[in-house]
Amino acid sequence: MTKQLIECVPNFSEGRRNEIIEAIVEPFRKRKGCALFDYRADKDHNRLVVSLGGEPDSVQEALLEAAKVAISNINLAQHQGSHPRIGAVDVIPFVPLQNITMEECVDLAHRFGQRYYKETGVPVYFYEEAALRPERKRLEVIRKGQYEALKREVVNSERHPDVGEPTLHPSAGATVIGARKILIAFNVNLGTDDVKVAKEIAKVVRSSSGGLSHVKCIGLTLKERGLVQVSTNIVDYEKNALYRVLELIRMEAKRWNVPVKETEIYGMIPAAAIVDNMSYYMQTSGFDPSQVIELRLLQMLGDDNT
Amino acid sequence: MTKQLIECVPNFSEGRRNEIIEAIVEPFRKRKGCALFDYRADKDHNRLVVSLGGEPDSVQEALLEAAKVAISNINLAQHQGSHPRIGAVDVIPFVPLQNITMEECVDLAHRFGQRYYKETGVPVYFYEEAALRPERKRLEVIRKGQYEALKREVVNSERHPDVGEPTLHPSAGATVIGARKILIAFNVNLGTDDVKVAKEIAKVVRSSSGGLSHVKCIGLTLKERGLVQVSTNIVDYEKNALYRVLELIRMEAKRWNVPVKETEIYGMIPAAAIVDNMSYYMQTSGFDPSQVIELRLLQMLGDDNT
Repeated sequence: MTKQLIECVPNFSEGRRNEIIEAIVEPFRKRKGCALFDYRADKDHNRLVVSLGGEPDSVQEALLEAAKVAISNINLAQHQGSHPRIGAVDVIPFVPLQNITMEECVDLAHRFGQRYYKETGVPVYFYEEAALRPERKRLEVIRKGQYEALKREVVNSERHPDVGEPTLHPSAGATVIGARKILIAFNVNLGTDDVKVAKEIAKVVRSSSGGLSHVKCIGLTLKERGLVQVSTNIVDYEKNALYRVLELIRMEAKRWNVPVKETEIYGMIPAAAIVDNMSYYMQTSGFDPSQVIELRLLQMLGDDNT
Repeated sequence: MTKQLIECVPNFSEGRRNEIIEAIVEPFRKRKGCALFDYRADKDHNRLVVSLGGEPDSVQEALLEAAKVAISNINLAQHQGSHPRIGAVDVIPFVPLQNITMEECVDLAHRFGQRYYKETGVPVYFYEEAALRPERKRLEVIRKGQYEALKREVVNSERHPDVGEPTLHPSAGATVIGARKILIAFNVNLGTDDVKVAKEIAKVVRSSSGGLSHVKCIGLTLKERGLVQVSTNIVDYEKNALYRVLELIRMEAKRWNVPVKETEIYGMIPAAAIVDNMSYYMQTSGFDPSQVIELRLLQMLGDDNT
């Protein structure tokens, strides 16, 4: 497959007004070469998370259109929500999928950031792999104190944007643009209503308290179902596979004599991760994703198109 | 996607001489509209399994070219291998993939069989959905006693070929051509050199002796590796999943105190089967193949093409 394909997961600070939400996602539906994978608005967060895929040029064009809708309809000065944010368009991560390296996605993020500022007047910070200052790899550093604090502190050199004047856009704030790997959201539901069990297991699993690298994890209650959940984010599925996370949770759950009731993969997952998980459980030797018919057809169609 | 697409999985009786193997697959590489998905030669089987996809016309042209290479280089009278066979070109199944019905694939098999005999002089038997005699739906009926027995018995009316004179090609034997659903070839290698164990397990697994429906299975020796293999063909993966076959084999292997060393998925597999297997082992609830990034991209590219 010669065509370059990326994923992009832009986050917008609008989770309540349906007509605005629909107007924001419209460009992703319409644009050729761009596929709207999924979008989820959360009222408490007052935030919209969109997942899309496609060719870099189409994705960028659609992003600019969507961003302009968001910028002219969202006023950060009046925005309230439980999720941290600094802009109407809060975060735009580019994710390499096919025939594109992380370096190329970083370059794409930088070029897009320049154009984005020129066309919208909203200043830009670069994060994760695209960070220009090492501390800005971490989104929480850029977003510290959120819009309200950044509005005052942006004049200080350590909080200057990477693109644009050291002042926020009056209503749309600033936007964080970057490049990162695919992230998989994976939940394991346990047959107990004791959230302590989920919290203890989460502590064992997550990297921050000494568990598996590249895995974030919390324990929480699913009230309506009378279950608890070990909720994980796998930040690098090539370094820590889902099956390893699941088997560690199964192992720890035995200590509490609690069964794993079911698991959920939330949102998108790359085919390679599915193949990897199957191969572990089935002891498959030498299996190659190119043996999957649809992946080969994707390759063939991609080649035909170029 | 309006284009007709088929899969084809020709099996050739050559698994050892690399230069012949490469010469056989060359036409599949070169022909436009035809994609060489995969090819695997097995020294013990002394057999080459090719998997290709593409447009019906291109696939047929490439098949004829490849068959002529095989026919002029393989002598069944001297051929030895652990896999049953009756011809240099042993089996050619056509499989509907996109925008083509099973009936159209049957028709294609019949027309191709006539042309194949005319151009090569190798007699043809039709099998599976393309069978002209009901008992010939089953490949093993046609292949009974293999080349060595068929050579003598072909003169008997019940073993007459469907196309051609009732005599085998002196060096290339006969070829079985047909149409069928996607078939998954799945092998389970056991940590013993006692072929009796593999044969006993195969008997339990295969539908013909009372095992799982839609599953064919034989036990054989992998001499070079000092292992035995339970070699299965899953004829309808929607009715009997791979994981069920594997778990039944694991269960039976315990009776012999023999470990499952590894498994092999031989050739192509549809994405739905991989998702299904992963979901079983990972207890995944409500997982939808449209969550797989590449499957969404395939949909997008397919739509763009029409």
